[in-house]
Order: sequence, then structure tokens, then C-alpha cells
Amino acid sequence: MEILVIGGTGTLGKAVVSELETNHDVITAGKTHGDFQVDITDESSVKALFNHTGKLDAIIATTGSLHFGPLTEMTAEQFNTGLQDKLLGQVRIGLIGQHFLHDGGSITLTSGIIAEEPIRQGANATTVNAAVEGFVRGAAIELPRGIRINVVSPTVVEESLKSYGPFFPGFDAAPAARVAKAYRRSVEGAQTGRVYKVW
Amino acid sequence: MEILVIGGTGTLGKAVVSELETNHDVITAGKTHGDFQVDITDESSVKALFNHTGKLDAIIATTGSLHFGPLTEMTAEQFNTGLQDKLLGQVRIGLIGQHFLHDGGSITLTSGIIAEEPIRQGANATTVNAAVEGFVRGAAIELPRGIRINVVSPTVVEESLKSYGPFFPGFDAAPAARVAKAYRRSVEGAQTGRVYKVW
Repeated sequence: MEILVIGGTGTLGKAVVSELETNHDVITAGKTHGDFQVDITDESSVKALFNHTGKLDAIIATTGSLHFGPLTEMTAEQFNTGLQDKLLGQVRIGLIGQHFLHDGGSITLTSGIIAEEPIRQGANATTVNAAVEGFVRGAAIELPRGIRINVVSPTVVEESLKSYGPFFPGFDAAPAARVAKAYRRSVEGAQTGRVYKVW
Repeated sequence: MEILVIGGTGTLGKAVVSELETNHDVITAGKTHGDFQVDITDESSVKALFNHTGKLDAIIATTGSLHFGPLTEMTAEQFNTGLQDKLLGQVRIGLIGQHFLHDGGSITLTSGIIAEEPIRQGANATTVNAAVEGFVRGAAIELPRGIRINVVSPTVVEESLKSYGPFFPGFDAAPAARVAKAYRRSVEGAQTGRVYKVW
């Protein structure tokens, strides 16, 4: 299959590319690295990306940033940065990407354990991750031509423990390589509207 | 208790006011009607509202609009209208409102059955409603001074069947007066981080 991994140069994205490139043609896109550059918060940038790749069999997004900070100091403006990036950025990939998928193609987005297991300073992350899962649930029943959509919800990734570990006290981490397998399940499996939890 | 109902002049809001005004002081705010006018998408408008009301015991939001339309024609810009209104609007009420609550006060927001039970043309609604529930889950563990936050998830309201009925084939509707009781449970109960489903 021809697979586009947006965020394919990040910690998790690299593992997804390694997992899939053994038996698929993988194209990577990232903010500054990869085969193509893309800003997922910019409509014309995402459109240009798909115009460059042409028709695909699978689209994977392992990208998107969030706002972390104490709730008592949080502003709606800060909150909106996560809505515009990890949430609307991935939704945009889905909304535009659907038109660039062959029949029976798939879209796989990324949420995270905080959707269900809140952490301190994580109200934006819980909201956005729950929203991405909601989008997948809603979109799955409407996508035409056998196109599927799923989401992978990873726990904190072992390779990121140095930066994010203190936010996740007592959480079991998972190696990126194990999380990456869930993307293969989504791409090569037959389900739609699923949350693949790796935790 | 001194209770502010934002959206208190809408179909559901009116029922919530009726339910609560028997034993509480209820102030209403709405886009064009009510004791105060407010635009929940506007930071300064929401700040002005709370500066007018002063300290409160409970804040209820029964307001917020969404984008409905076929997924295959949906744009990120349209999608963002629901994010800015029903999602970020309610989040803004929570973020600003927390500072205007007495110790032990509460915030009650509104999601909807589509969070879990998607309908055609409802991808934005499923996303936004799931996100509001995520915000409540995330915020509940961080709110200080015994402040609680919950969300009511109503099925389609009987009084709205004329306009929305065709979107909800086979769904059980509930009278607004029954949905309104869930807001009382949230305000007068002791739980936090709860989704009160009325369906």
C-alpha cells in the first residue's frame, strides 16, 4: 500500500514508519523534516501536501501539539492552541484526506491515554484527545467507498519519558515500537470507528 | 444558592431555570435575552458577564452551537465554528467562571447523546460533545476550594423534535423538564467529573 505518515519524523512517527515500511511504500511528512513539509494548522499547506502525494491507500497522523498548564491559570486563548493544532489539525487531515483515498482506504489518527485518565495540567490534553476519538466515532459512520477511520491511544511512550515522565506518575510506559503495531492493526485490519488503546 | 444559567432563555435553559428557581436565586444570561447578554465566543463579553454577576454558588451552561452537515462536504473552517462556540465557549465559561465561584461552588456544562451515539451529519457534534465531557473529566481533578464540575448529556429534547427530530431516527426523546432535573443533581449533589446522561 501507499501510506502517508504525517508526523513521520517524530518519536512515535519514526517507529510507525519502521513498522510499516517492511511491506508498504511509506511517504513521510513533518513540520521541518520528511519527504514533504506540512503545517497541519494551515488549510492550504495540508491541501498542497495531498496534491503532491496524489491518491493514497492509508493516511496516518502522529502529530499535533497541546497546551499544558495549571487549570487555575489557563486562558481560553491558550486552550485554543491545542484545539487548533492536535484536534483541528488532525480533523483537517481527515476531512481533506478522505478525498485523496482509494476505495477501501483508511485514516488513522492519534489520541492518548489522557483522554480517559486525566493528569495535572492536562485539561486541554484530555479534551483534545477525547475530541479526536469523538471525531473518529462520528466520521466512521459517514465515510463512503469503504473508507475506514480509527484512532490509536498510546500511553506515555518510553522514549519520551525524559521530557514527559514527571507528568505521568505511576503510568506504565510503552516502547514506541509496541505502539506502532496498533497503527498496523488499523491500516491492515477491517474495523472502523475503533480506538486502539496501547495501555 | 446564587445560580447563573447561561443559555437560560433557550428551550432547555428555561426548563432548568423553572426547576431551580423554586429554591434558588437564578440569574439568566443569553445571546439576546435574559438578565444579562453574553457572547460566549468573546472573551471580554464573558468576563464582563461575571464582573456584573459577582460571586456565585453555581454556574450552568445550556448553550452553544454546532456545525451540522455531510462529512464528505465538511471543511475545517465549518468544523471550527462548533469548536469555537459550543466547545471553547463552554470551556471559557469554566475557565473564567472558576474565579467567580464561592468555595464548594459548581460548574455544570452541556454535551449530548451524540457524543456516544453518532448520527449522520453529526461528526462535529460528536467531536464537540465528547470534548466537553473530556474537559469536565480533566478539570475535575484540578479545581481548587472544593469546586466541582459536571456535564449533562441529554438525548434529543421533546420540545425540539420539530426541528431536530429527523436527525434522530428511533431515538427516545426526553421532555426538557426531565433533562432539567440532571442539572439539579449536579448543582445540589456532591459528585465531580460526572457525566449525567438523560437517555
